[in-house]
Amino acid sequence: MKRNLLLTPGPTQLPAPVCEALGRPIIHHRTPQFQAILKEAVDGLKHIFQTKNDVLILTSSGTGGMEAAVCNLLSPKDQAITVDGGKFGERWTELCQAYGVDAKVLKIKWGQAPTAAQIKQILDEEKNIKAVFVTLVETSTGVTTDIKAIGEVVKKTNAVLVVDAISGLGAVDLQTDNWGVDVVVAGSQKGLMLPPGLAFVSVSSKAWALMEKSTNPKYYFNLKEAKKAAEKTDTPFTPAIGIVIALNESIKLMKAAGLEKLFSHYARLAKGTRAAAQALGLSLLAEDSCISNAVTPINLPVGIDGEKLAKIMRDTHGITVAGGQDAVKGKIIRISHMGCLDEYDMLTGIACLEKVLHEMGHKFQLGAGVAAAQKFFNTK
Amino acid sequence: MKRNLLLTPGPTQLPAPVCEALGRPIIHHRTPQFQAILKEAVDGLKHIFQTKNDVLILTSSGTGGMEAAVCNLLSPKDQAITVDGGKFGERWTELCQAYGVDAKVLKIKWGQAPTAAQIKQILDEEKNIKAVFVTLVETSTGVTTDIKAIGEVVKKTNAVLVVDAISGLGAVDLQTDNWGVDVVVAGSQKGLMLPPGLAFVSVSSKAWALMEKSTNPKYYFNLKEAKKAAEKTDTPFTPAIGIVIALNESIKLMKAAGLEKLFSHYARLAKGTRAAAQALGLSLLAEDSCISNAVTPINLPVGIDGEKLAKIMRDTHGITVAGGQDAVKGKIIRISHMGCLDEYDMLTGIACLEKVLHEMGHKFQLGAGVAAAQKFFNTK
Repeated sequence: MKRNLLLTPGPTQLPAPVCEALGRPIIHHRTPQFQAILKEAVDGLKHIFQTKNDVLILTSSGTGGMEAAVCNLLSPKDQAITVDGGKFGERWTELCQAYGVDAKVLKIKWGQAPTAAQIKQILDEEKNIKAVFVTLVETSTGVTTDIKAIGEVVKKTNAVLVVDAISGLGAVDLQTDNWGVDVVVAGSQKGLMLPPGLAFVSVSSKAWALMEKSTNPKYYFNLKEAKKAAEKTDTPFTPAIGIVIALNESIKLMKAAGLEKLFSHYARLAKGTRAAAQALGLSLLAEDSCISNAVTPINLPVGIDGEKLAKIMRDTHGITVAGGQDAVKGKIIRISHMGCLDEYDMLTGIACLEKVLHEMGHKFQLGAGVAAAQKFFNTK
Repeated sequence: MKRNLLLTPGPTQLPAPVCEALGRPIIHHRTPQFQAILKEAVDGLKHIFQTKNDVLILTSSGTGGMEAAVCNLLSPKDQAITVDGGKFGERWTELCQAYGVDAKVLKIKWGQAPTAAQIKQILDEEKNIKAVFVTLVETSTGVTTDIKAIGEVVKKTNAVLVVDAISGLGAVDLQTDNWGVDVVVAGSQKGLMLPPGLAFVSVSSKAWALMEKSTNPKYYFNLKEAKKAAEKTDTPFTPAIGIVIALNESIKLMKAAGLEKLFSHYARLAKGTRAAAQALGLSLLAEDSCISNAVTPINLPVGIDGEKLAKIMRDTHGITVAGGQDAVKGKIIRISHMGCLDEYDMLTGIACLEKVLHEMGHKFQLGAGVAAAQKFFNTK
């Protein structure tokens, strides 16, 4: 009888039509039937990526897509900019280092976002930067980066702008073409409301040109081969057929809602949750200027063990939120708004958070969080 | 109303409990609930791999697992043996070349298998071979390799034996430990009766020792990191949760049947199909001595276009068989026995093959194929 509510930033709650599609008997991928599905998927992804660039489908987690970006764009000793201000920014640095790329790491405080001015300064100082790697929503801190402003800076240079949009694509705005983003990496299990298993990579002509020069070894993640196959509405290797089929169900739902409306929907869920946190006397890890609408990172009161809190919410109440990672492990919880969720799911999550915080000894007016969120949802 | 029968060597027909599991609401992967599932999956895989070695789960197609083997075991300029006698043997060569490995390619005729004596000769001539890459079932030709005999040869050297068992694991016998196989790569969408999206790699202590020396870049497919995570019943990156859950359903079915019985079941389906081919006057691409029980490669009569034949079977009758690849494109069809299939599926496939061959002008006694297969199935 226990609830299974995922308020986690990946995997996210699946819509019923997605589950239904996943449960269908399988079809073969080298058929006109699957080709039509693949074409629909790529067209739909272009809409969600807001791009006319190529969008390639890889069978891997989002990290595989990130690796594809690094090993296809760069060569050993190339210079790149990465950001150290959260777990996923650090992954860009690790990937660069794995491939012998000289990463100029911009270190910022957890909870802050890298600014266009900071990126510009490094680009001005180092004249050979080939790529700038940033993160749309840094899930570990709930911070969102001003991609538009960074795009303005990077597009004036020879460097390509690469955005990890694994967390956030489909939930917060990312205007790939308008903002001059050369490579966007996304994953299936976040804003796209699918199980994990697929990564998506969009590639601009500026990025394709840079890829011509890369000497790093690559095979499974070779994007030029993926493009060649895509031109014949195919994939170089057997794709995760079931998830591609379910992707079209999810795209249908997202298109029916409309991207603008989806972004305001998630913004509304995020703001209601922030109102609840404030009413409970809890601050947020991310600064106001850069907090994302994809996930809300709530600082816990001193003395409350965040690992234990999340464990009780999950194991006793069936409501899963994310704990803190690395530097903030045990100190925060993260409530995600991405996925097939509405305001009642947020109220449920907040009610459960209140109950467990109360049991663990935090002093506050029980019900204040739900009331504040409800008030917000009833007026906005 | 059209049938959707897959007689293809991947994806294969899914059992109903697998479809049901795939359609369930998703759960989070960093939970004790998923850890229990992961543990059950790894234990089950060890049973099917017939090994006590580590078995790691990667989210990718089988090719990703092959790449993991190459980039983790070897370094640029290392020497390795690969086999050129079918599309998937060639993939080992391509992977070695992508990573700067010096591949000594054993060229054999399509339809033949590499012998232990041939492998021994190269090992005797070249004293620095680090790895021998072979294919359990070369799906493109329907040939199976005598892994046991090759294992006897390789285990006496410093080289590791790496087997691509993507096609065949769970359908034909592969005694990883008894036969001295150091690395086995498998995929989800063949004998394991799952959708594509997972690769599995078993690693012996001899192989782990070699991996310590590898200098090739790796990140997503870093097997040492995968092992480190596996020791905490985790994966380094978000796994294809849904397919792992379904894997346990498939393993349950396979264990209930018993490996020995599964192998005889598929052998029976293969032999019935070969009897049918003979009755239709059609020869087989693979030689008798090495034909596999996973897939039957049937040579078509001169003048019959195999691409067209397969297309009619699929589009008119809903029965999908595989055509020929590369050198034998249009000249053969391949009927797979792997997956959730029984003798009635074989009779269906043969009946359809007869109908379309007849329509396309091949002269034979209509019904002879089904009768021969049925006779075999009713007496064996």
